[in-house]
Amino acid sequence: MEARYKLLKAGVPDKDLISKSNKMLYIGLTFALVFLISHFHVQYTPAEQFTAEPHSAIFDTEGVQQCPSALPPPASPPAPVNLWASLDLEDAVQIRQWLHAPERKLNLTQVDTRYASSDNMLYNLEAYYPSKAEALAYLGSPSSVPRPDRYARVTIHHGARLEPVIKDYLVGPLPVGPQTEMHELTSIYHRNDIPFHARGIAINNEIIQFLGGMMAPLADATKELLGSVAVGLPNDTLSLHPSAPFSFDGEFRRLWFQCKRNTAGSYLQPLGFFQYFDMSGTDPSQWKLLKIVYNYQIFHNTESFLEAFHNGTLRRLPSRLNDTTDLSWSSRKRIGLQRDLDHLPGPRSVSFAGLRFRVDRKLQYISWMGWGLYLGFDRDMGLSLWDIRMQNERIVYQLAPQEALAQYAGNDPIQANTAWLDRYFGMGAKVGNLLPGYDCPHEAVYLPATTHTDFGIITREQAICVFEHDTGRPLTRHVGSVDGEFGAARGYVLTIRSISTVGNYDFQFDYMLHLDGTIEVRLSASGYLQGTFWDSAQGAYGTRIHNTTMGSVHDHVINFKIDLDVAGVKNSLLHTSTSQEEVTQPWFDDDWGQTVVQQRITREYITNEDDALLKYPSNFQGGYAVVNKEQTNKWGVPRGYAIQPGYSPIHNTVVGSKRLLNNANWARYNLAVSVRKDSEPASSSMWNANLPGAPLVDFHNFFDGENITQEDLVVWVNVGTHHLPSAEDSPNTRTSTASSSFFLTPLNYFDYDISIDSTNAILLTPPKEPGDAFTYDDYGVKPAHCVPEAPPLFEYYG
Amino acid sequence: MEARYKLLKAGVPDKDLISKSNKMLYIGLTFALVFLISHFHVQYTPAEQFTAEPHSAIFDTEGVQQCPSALPPPASPPAPVNLWASLDLEDAVQIRQWLHAPERKLNLTQVDTRYASSDNMLYNLEAYYPSKAEALAYLGSPSSVPRPDRYARVTIHHGARLEPVIKDYLVGPLPVGPQTEMHELTSIYHRNDIPFHARGIAINNEIIQFLGGMMAPLADATKELLGSVAVGLPNDTLSLHPSAPFSFDGEFRRLWFQCKRNTAGSYLQPLGFFQYFDMSGTDPSQWKLLKIVYNYQIFHNTESFLEAFHNGTLRRLPSRLNDTTDLSWSSRKRIGLQRDLDHLPGPRSVSFAGLRFRVDRKLQYISWMGWGLYLGFDRDMGLSLWDIRMQNERIVYQLAPQEALAQYAGNDPIQANTAWLDRYFGMGAKVGNLLPGYDCPHEAVYLPATTHTDFGIITREQAICVFEHDTGRPLTRHVGSVDGEFGAARGYVLTIRSISTVGNYDFQFDYMLHLDGTIEVRLSASGYLQGTFWDSAQGAYGTRIHNTTMGSVHDHVINFKIDLDVAGVKNSLLHTSTSQEEVTQPWFDDDWGQTVVQQRITREYITNEDDALLKYPSNFQGGYAVVNKEQTNKWGVPRGYAIQPGYSPIHNTVVGSKRLLNNANWARYNLAVSVRKDSEPASSSMWNANLPGAPLVDFHNFFDGENITQEDLVVWVNVGTHHLPSAEDSPNTRTSTASSSFFLTPLNYFDYDISIDSTNAILLTPPKEPGDAFTYDDYGVKPAHCVPEAPPLFEYYG
Repeated sequence: MEARYKLLKAGVPDKDLISKSNKMLYIGLTFALVFLISHFHVQYTPAEQFTAEPHSAIFDTEGVQQCPSALPPPASPPAPVNLWASLDLEDAVQIRQWLHAPERKLNLTQVDTRYASSDNMLYNLEAYYPSKAEALAYLGSPSSVPRPDRYARVTIHHGARLEPVIKDYLVGPLPVGPQTEMHELTSIYHRNDIPFHARGIAINNEIIQFLGGMMAPLADATKELLGSVAVGLPNDTLSLHPSAPFSFDGEFRRLWFQCKRNTAGSYLQPLGFFQYFDMSGTDPSQWKLLKIVYNYQIFHNTESFLEAFHNGTLRRLPSRLNDTTDLSWSSRKRIGLQRDLDHLPGPRSVSFAGLRFRVDRKLQYISWMGWGLYLGFDRDMGLSLWDIRMQNERIVYQLAPQEALAQYAGNDPIQANTAWLDRYFGMGAKVGNLLPGYDCPHEAVYLPATTHTDFGIITREQAICVFEHDTGRPLTRHVGSVDGEFGAARGYVLTIRSISTVGNYDFQFDYMLHLDGTIEVRLSASGYLQGTFWDSAQGAYGTRIHNTTMGSVHDHVINFKIDLDVAGVKNSLLHTSTSQEEVTQPWFDDDWGQTVVQQRITREYITNEDDALLKYPSNFQGGYAVVNKEQTNKWGVPRGYAIQPGYSPIHNTVVGSKRLLNNANWARYNLAVSVRKDSEPASSSMWNANLPGAPLVDFHNFFDGENITQEDLVVWVNVGTHHLPSAEDSPNTRTSTASSSFFLTPLNYFDYDISIDSTNAILLTPPKEPGDAFTYDDYGVKPAHCVPEAPPLFEYYG
Repeated sequence: MEARYKLLKAGVPDKDLISKSNKMLYIGLTFALVFLISHFHVQYTPAEQFTAEPHSAIFDTEGVQQCPSALPPPASPPAPVNLWASLDLEDAVQIRQWLHAPERKLNLTQVDTRYASSDNMLYNLEAYYPSKAEALAYLGSPSSVPRPDRYARVTIHHGARLEPVIKDYLVGPLPVGPQTEMHELTSIYHRNDIPFHARGIAINNEIIQFLGGMMAPLADATKELLGSVAVGLPNDTLSLHPSAPFSFDGEFRRLWFQCKRNTAGSYLQPLGFFQYFDMSGTDPSQWKLLKIVYNYQIFHNTESFLEAFHNGTLRRLPSRLNDTTDLSWSSRKRIGLQRDLDHLPGPRSVSFAGLRFRVDRKLQYISWMGWGLYLGFDRDMGLSLWDIRMQNERIVYQLAPQEALAQYAGNDPIQANTAWLDRYFGMGAKVGNLLPGYDCPHEAVYLPATTHTDFGIITREQAICVFEHDTGRPLTRHVGSVDGEFGAARGYVLTIRSISTVGNYDFQFDYMLHLDGTIEVRLSASGYLQGTFWDSAQGAYGTRIHNTTMGSVHDHVINFKIDLDVAGVKNSLLHTSTSQEEVTQPWFDDDWGQTVVQQRITREYITNEDDALLKYPSNFQGGYAVVNKEQTNKWGVPRGYAIQPGYSPIHNTVVGSKRLLNNANWARYNLAVSVRKDSEPASSSMWNANLPGAPLVDFHNFFDGENITQEDLVVWVNVGTHHLPSAEDSPNTRTSTASSSFFLTPLNYFDYDISIDSTNAILLTPPKEPGDAFTYDDYGVKPAHCVPEAPPLFEYYG
């Protein structure tokens, strides 16, 4: 347990690199210990302990029975393995041993605080997914077709080489044995090398020591100018917040940092002091300060800044000492009067008759109301969904987030320079344990996730929550006077959730299955703004939200991969649009004239992927669907699934910024459709972030003129927000309005609305005698009355 | 009780006028009785019976206490009257008596089936709202300022006049007394007369008898061609479905009808037989058939049609007798296998510690978590919200739906001609009782609504439901490692709901209050499509969804009035937009070049209402807010509320159709802002529907060049859907994807996010010893464990 807490904590503040050098050191030192502990504590809960006997009442007290257990009943996955499962601990240990063996000649250094950039190190280790062809063959007949060979993807920082470089390898087949080999993995990238300057942040003391050394001579100045003591000294009251990208094409690694107060919500406590450092190469002694910017004055080294500071030529900002008396406004500590009746807990959802979804915890397989799917989880983007079937027919092979862009603007070096791509930080690695009863409803079921990174093996026991939720509204209903017309079906969704905290903000990924075959994908944002120092020249770039803090305008765009298989893998892209026409009709006479102005639908298939980089039409007049032209429903219409925009259906505002030149081309569109290939598994890579000029994956390269008629297609869909902050983003952004979503919804896929089979529904018949009650058919499903289990006491171990 | 059921039933099938002539007759005959009963049964439940003692446990069994009552605690309205309450029964009875008194000389006929168009009749009677100035004066000091005089609006059909006409009157002050007078109400309309041809549908036998007479000679033909027996004969198996508008400017009243099978979901059972009737004037003997259209053949009278039918020249459609064997596919009767675990009831929300919202049933006032508001209800549009305050500061004076447009397209006379405006039918009059546990969660609180129309006094005891709902996700949260950063606040909303069924479809109006000061307005559609007869020539206008049925493309656009008062009544319209700029910065050197490409915000106030007919910007880059330029928050930013689009933020597709020429000009935009006036209370009228060329209210007339800087403003916002039906709309449209919404959300209105005061929240502190549990502050709010009341057995009385 200690392992997880400390590691998670270490994992959080990457964007806030050295706010607490002492703590970082401590974390670093504990890391090796933790790493060892993790290796020897394999602690999966056996499936049989986890699942409940389905829905039997337990005992009887005063006539009201105890409700059935709130544990999910066991599931029946279509195959006895999860082809997209994370590496288990045993595999990971064996691969590490195998990699460290002398005959591999990798000369790997154990990762701890003593590790240096100039060492070789294992950065990431994870399962590599089988080819789709192999997976489908196996899933088609799991009892007769052997499961595909298993491989691991291994990322190594070759820091010790004369020309340091990063390499991805495939290691396998697994488990490790005589036949296991290691090959370089390049087929999924658009350049052959991975520049070392684009490498991920790893735990070591070099950066802390370098920045501490840079800040030390400035201590008097920062104390006087910023009211805060510099980093690296006891009782640090400053933290340094970087921006990105660090590089354009891998030639250099240079970072801007802004000083902020080291307090809760430091993101909102900027101090208007900026530094630019060159951290190229692997020798920290060669790293250097390039610039200091303070109050629009630029200094090219520490000496010239200090000279101006001492000789009175520095144009100073007003003293901010008065601000420092109470910094708690940027914390989440509650303030204000308690609202009426808020001393009571709000309503709580209870499945009085027992949970209605099934979970195979070992296989990470979930089923509910005809739906079934497997879960995957990786370092880069976290939770993904695989082989999503309705009534045993596959609709989606893979549904997985790809990348999260956040591009800022401002009148200062930090905000104008910032274009984060958070795959770099590892949105999966940044998934934390969910807070039971707060992040998910009380009776949610939690599933673990494991990553094997430079942080070691981290299993978060509550990385994913699953719960059935009453939407609070009927899915369908009608009041009619004819027998058979009057009734309603309750609206339930199954939600699968994970939340990733990347530095300042928290992204909640929700996948919601509806009873009618609709899949809703929703991203909600909370957490902190990346604030900056307010002055009146910043007005065009945001809003003042505190004395000297502003919220800066920025775009979030998040890309999802959806490998739809609509009635088979061979699909086409249907573009539907509506326009206005004036037509003549012989049956209209001169009451109204013989012409009618009305809508007209145009349906066309987009046949080439180059034409499939798409934006939603103006006024949403039409849309896009993946259909199978060769499979029609009972009425002769090609079966399809539509991509329907939900909340905030936006794409990135800025086009042509050097900071996102070619590394996030997916963000220019609302959606795009390309031929699915094993060599194009993802629209981005963790190294794209710092290689805008020469990315590992250039999304536009996927679009090379191929035919997309009756091919295996992938839809790349964006969600996001144009975030123009207001005072109400302080302290944290609210999910009420900071949400974006889309729907995958059947479009003539079925012959009728399948939710008509619901028995959580009612059909009413008028009474024979006026004034009598209506008779009704509730299909035998009535609310259960029983004593639910006491909600568990809140406990959190990190 | 019998009153309500029969009346509601009578109210439903207006679009399906004479499907069941026998039943209609029966309903008509029972009406007079019902009307009398209603007058003598004043049956408000006293407030004290309705509200609960707040939250005391009742008894103890086996250590688990009984939960507190699920009744809402009493509220404390800011004023002891609801200025927007419906007329109570006593008032209504007195006004009717007063109107019927000989000295009024109105010569009113009692409305029943014997009533004729050529009689005078009272069509509608409802409260007329006080002027805003009077209301605000009273609300500012309800203890010292007398409440505004009360008036009723009375709509009379003067059918007996030589030139029949409709008139609206104001009657008051109320209660009826010597000072009560009657004045014509014209100030809110843009023409002085209300043409009789635009009159609302009233209960009488004329239409039934006329249509029956027209259909009788066709019985053999419809039997043979359509497989169904004509209307007006015993065992009717045909129903007639009209389209609208009936008139262009009031000169005529002419209706197209389509034959459909008289079965459950007749809307989906079209038969491809169309008739056009002239029903102008008040003398049914002058009404006549103008056209019959069958299989693209046009006949100008019954004789010529029958001649072709008999002499073999009629080009016949394929026989449809085989279709008639099983029509149940268009009913809501469930089919299919039961899904896994669907024999269990789904999760149910329980406020174990008692409800947290307060209700004054008598005043129809609701409060929750700092919010407070009054409810109103009228015939035309149903539920409205008034004097919406957060922490006793008014944010919205009035929030009310205005009109619902549905415009179809097609290759047949019905769909191409159809442009419904449902205010005509009375969306309030069409509100039915909600189905407990299906339309609203089990512990919802229901409120009644009363209308006084030609149908009589109808009180629906369960017209409105109110419930607190757990959104299932945190409103705000963050995982941070610094003390004070790590925590979450639960997300709850209070939902106020009403559902209106206008013929084929059901519109669910949801008003959702969030803890952060956000108001979400969501409209969800279910019910039946207005289907039509499928043939291949219809392909551009929809999709085949059954053998000979298609779902036709149509737009729904629904307009809301939002009288925002942001920090007072004087407000301005802020337009924010973002664009891309390239700027030079001295602190960037040639790593990246000295220019930066980034976003830039432009803020401008729209100063003239003529410039305030608005569409959302492309890619939603920017938006609109109502702000008070003279009231800033603590950071110097004008306090405001933004109108943020939610699901399906669309406007009408078709512009320039004669059928919506000037009667729904609001539908051309996403939103519009005008100066608020007592003379412009609504963007439409019930008579707009049938007066596209010369409407009572032309929305464009509101925009007459007035200054909107620091004036009292109204925002008119649209929601809607471009509905391109699919097979999954059969039998009913699904709310999962057929929803549209917008948010009113604070924009620097507060100094910070006020939901930080929530005590249904948690703040975590890392443990001192790694591996220990986190300590936390849950503000004393823990989940309650108790035995909830048994959910009541389902009962429905209509």
